[in-house]
Amino acid sequence: MTDTAAFLDEARAILGERGLTTDADLLDPWLTDWRGRFTGRALALASPAATEQVADLVKLCARHGVPIVPQGGNSGMCGGATPDASGEAIILSLRRMDKVRHFDKSARQIVCEAGLVLQTLHEVAGAQGMRFPLTLGGKGSATVGGLIATNAGGTQVLRHGSMRAQVLGLEGVMADGAVFDGLTVLKKDNRGFDLKQLLIGSEGTLGIVTAATLRLLPALGDRRVVWAGLPSLAAARRLLTHCQDEAGDALEGFEVMAQPTLDDVIRHLPDARQPLAGRHAWHALIELVADDADAQSLGERTEAMLAGALERGLLDDAVIAANEAQAEGFWLLRDSIAAAEREKGPAVQHDISVPVEKMPEFVDFAVPRIERDWPGTEALAFGHLGDGNVHFHVIAPDGVEPMDWMTGDGKAISAQVYRMVSEWDGSISAEHGIGQLKRDELAQLSDPARLAIMRQVKRALDPNNILNPGKLVPLAPDAPIQ
Amino acid sequence: MTDTAAFLDEARAILGERGLTTDADLLDPWLTDWRGRFTGRALALASPAATEQVADLVKLCARHGVPIVPQGGNSGMCGGATPDASGEAIILSLRRMDKVRHFDKSARQIVCEAGLVLQTLHEVAGAQGMRFPLTLGGKGSATVGGLIATNAGGTQVLRHGSMRAQVLGLEGVMADGAVFDGLTVLKKDNRGFDLKQLLIGSEGTLGIVTAATLRLLPALGDRRVVWAGLPSLAAARRLLTHCQDEAGDALEGFEVMAQPTLDDVIRHLPDARQPLAGRHAWHALIELVADDADAQSLGERTEAMLAGALERGLLDDAVIAANEAQAEGFWLLRDSIAAAEREKGPAVQHDISVPVEKMPEFVDFAVPRIERDWPGTEALAFGHLGDGNVHFHVIAPDGVEPMDWMTGDGKAISAQVYRMVSEWDGSISAEHGIGQLKRDELAQLSDPARLAIMRQVKRALDPNNILNPGKLVPLAPDAPIQ
Repeated sequence: MTDTAAFLDEARAILGERGLTTDADLLDPWLTDWRGRFTGRALALASPAATEQVADLVKLCARHGVPIVPQGGNSGMCGGATPDASGEAIILSLRRMDKVRHFDKSARQIVCEAGLVLQTLHEVAGAQGMRFPLTLGGKGSATVGGLIATNAGGTQVLRHGSMRAQVLGLEGVMADGAVFDGLTVLKKDNRGFDLKQLLIGSEGTLGIVTAATLRLLPALGDRRVVWAGLPSLAAARRLLTHCQDEAGDALEGFEVMAQPTLDDVIRHLPDARQPLAGRHAWHALIELVADDADAQSLGERTEAMLAGALERGLLDDAVIAANEAQAEGFWLLRDSIAAAEREKGPAVQHDISVPVEKMPEFVDFAVPRIERDWPGTEALAFGHLGDGNVHFHVIAPDGVEPMDWMTGDGKAISAQVYRMVSEWDGSISAEHGIGQLKRDELAQLSDPARLAIMRQVKRALDPNNILNPGKLVPLAPDAPIQ
Repeated sequence: MTDTAAFLDEARAILGERGLTTDADLLDPWLTDWRGRFTGRALALASPAATEQVADLVKLCARHGVPIVPQGGNSGMCGGATPDASGEAIILSLRRMDKVRHFDKSARQIVCEAGLVLQTLHEVAGAQGMRFPLTLGGKGSATVGGLIATNAGGTQVLRHGSMRAQVLGLEGVMADGAVFDGLTVLKKDNRGFDLKQLLIGSEGTLGIVTAATLRLLPALGDRRVVWAGLPSLAAARRLLTHCQDEAGDALEGFEVMAQPTLDDVIRHLPDARQPLAGRHAWHALIELVADDADAQSLGERTEAMLAGALERGLLDDAVIAANEAQAEGFWLLRDSIAAAEREKGPAVQHDISVPVEKMPEFVDFAVPRIERDWPGTEALAFGHLGDGNVHFHVIAPDGVEPMDWMTGDGKAISAQVYRMVSEWDGSISAEHGIGQLKRDELAQLSDPARLAIMRQVKRALDPNNILNPGKLVPLAPDAPIQ
């Protein structure tokens, strides 16, 4: 082990007084993930103010063998930014590095530092008549660096892709302290491997993202939000294809939920009511958008799309939100599912995906299977049908103690869900990542060839395993916990 | 060195008689690249019929230390598929593996093997009312595997991106013979590094692409092709921004050429004439497209876009092709630049890019600089302004012998062009790759941090350097030729 006092002195010399603290009161909030599932300890909280400081600090850590846990908004879902219990690591917060370095409206690009908060990014873009086409629940704390490191998803992936698709350029610090400078955007550049792709989604295990060039789009001119009632999830899948054919790039969202889930939400929200008069096995929330150039024809196109769907028997009933308030109301129903479900008792949640075309079949298979194997549970699937990504939640039987559930049947159910997903060629992590939460499941369920490549790349770029050790990559084949 | 006879026997046992040849008549055509710039020798030509045969062959090569040069249509521009002079390597042709494994119109995906020729892919997609949104001059020979290995570009990158953007899933064989099976498409999958990105654009140095899942789009409903006259390249850049704002995703092409270049083309083509009455410093060829759903309004939108541009003084004159024949005629002018230029004598050609917004300034700087430093030469820039990618050609002074030019001043001019591009934060290879042609330039001009990462990744995934050795990655820092 390193000489801690000497290490901290040198670190303080690099970062200045504001840049380093070992004060327990200041450290504590960052030692536990926001959902309270993981807690660790750390030597110090380092808060560099510039890329050069990050580089110098990484070199220092490499010399002393001090592990580094990079952290953005600490709002991840899988414990990827929480240190382990050893207390040997430092937390490297990027939050002080939150500058917008450059804004180019005509090139539709923004260059910003890793600590910029997503909501601030939305505001900066909006003030210039532009928008950043990715959003999610944690936008008030999630940072650009964390979004990149986890390749974050959200509700606009159907149209715009996940974070990977928004990153045009990237700056990062590698395990030896070298700065990878890839901020300059070249629309075409075939000088070998696209190295920025390695850092995106690597959860800080291959390098530390310090800045990025992100793509922007013109601000929206208008939107139409539709609520549709459907006889089955397979029908929803057919409707999705119809909407993609008819609306093309205007289709920005396509979310689904079953009738019982909607009933729970209506009970949960005091003033809410069912958007449609009748009851339907499944419901779809569909959003079409247009920029200013296309805003005029959006209403017509939405109506034509729905008329065609009715004619072809693709839906039972549908309504277009009459105004923005009603549109917001429709989205509130979707966004309240998690809260409504919490009232029903403890649950285990799974962020899973299967190939889009298999999703209806998978849900029709998995929901009754779980409810049969685990009597008294209630399984529900909802979310981003268009992405093949559903949130598959299983609610405990009445009266079960939360702790008993989480460590007993709930855990066994999760293992079963992940096995089923893997058998269906799906992913045990659609948008939340692996972190420490799912690393051992990844080791058990992943294709050995994939695991081997991941290990080779990790060992090549971080030979001393100082970058977020213990996260994402199951390094030792036979002993997943290292 | 290996026991060659034993190696060939074992290889024949894996591949069968049809799958292996050492016959000089059959080997010869594949020992030289199609432009005739590079020639090598090889132990044998291996033509596996299935992924398992590729895997077994790679394992055999690994055991015997026999280098592998993967080859598709042999229509690359940088010698990336041509073996070296040692004769120790085998050529691994993927051309026999040309099956369409699966076509899913509703999911807009095709799964095909690496040897499928691009033109056949276009035909297969077209027969189902779909299209594959990437095309280029070598489409009659270029294969899917080669397009992926080189991350090919073409004329539709502005709207649809390069090959990387078309690859949804990928199957490949790694240096140890392990099969990476990533064909299943998950729109969202955050289980760690996106490994397929490593193989795309790696020119066969990290793995051998054997199959891919590619995205398809609905066939085009209609297009409008515009010819515009402009006072400067900076004006063309402003016009591009205007077109992007007005036409949005309908804008599929934006190519530029200077008046003298157009004059050369008109002289070269017997029946061609200037699209516009007057003379203009620069000309732009603009294409807007629409699928069936949007075809009706395309004409109106094109006219509105041009009216707005005229009103804002963004162009001097413009004409919309009156019919498909005239549209083809406009494109013929663009596609004949290279042929027209060949009549003017030997030239050196550079496939370069700089950030889109800097391109006008770069061309205005580089053209006179080269013509001043090298009296009697003529420099011309044309191509994909929207991608920041121009083809920058320099024609030799009258009477210079081609061989003298290529090995003397031409070579020195290329070195100067690549230095200038690097100083402007650009790329010495926008779309053609590195291969053996530009490997040493890459070693000299690339950022050391990038080179280090490339080397680390190459050594990790191909520790014995049997996959396309000597291409792309300058492995030895001090001795670029290994």
